[in-house]
Amino acid sequence: MDPQTSYLGYLAAVLTTSAFIPQVFMVWRQRGAPGISTGMYMIFITGVALWTCYGLALSDWPIILANGVTLVLASAVLGMKWYFARAGLAER
Amino acid sequence: MDPQTSYLGYLAAVLTTSAFIPQVFMVWRQRGAPGISTGMYMIFITGVALWTCYGLALSDWPIILANGVTLVLASAVLGMKWYFARAGLAER
Repeated sequence: MDPQTSYLGYLAAVLTTSAFIPQVFMVWRQRGAPGISTGMYMIFITGVALWTCYGLALSDWPIILANGVTLVLASAVLGMKWYFARAGLAER
Repeated sequence: MDPQTSYLGYLAAVLTTSAFIPQVFMVWRQRGAPGISTGMYMIFITGVALWTCYGLALSDWPIILANGVTLVLASAVLGMKWYFARAGLAER
């Protein structure tokens, strides 16, 4: 892979991954994620996990890094959504 | 690229892309997208556009298709957000 293509991939990776970060903070601040569909998020996380495997199969680092980090961020969002939902029920 | 890796890529593409579809319908039904940050969405769309170029540079069809379709869906969400926001202002 020529360097320009690599840079393109790394730049794309930074942009699509960083777009996720505000959502993590929003769910943390709001102590919940009412607007997020658990079903759709689980489909998305499964897809991102497969993209990570795809990147590993091709030894394609931009894909591995972008999807590996997104996998962690998206799992954090879903984990917080469940945690705050259960904590909310516990307080009632 | 061996067939198994291709199938992995196409399956990942279907999952991460289809997770976007409910958001398009939600914005259409709600006639707006208050919970969506325009700035973050523009960063995400730029990233997805770069991923599409990355796929083209590598002639990697799973990447081209996944990001090409996501680019259309995410642009539709942002376009509707602007349209309904302006239409909302116009009615006042």
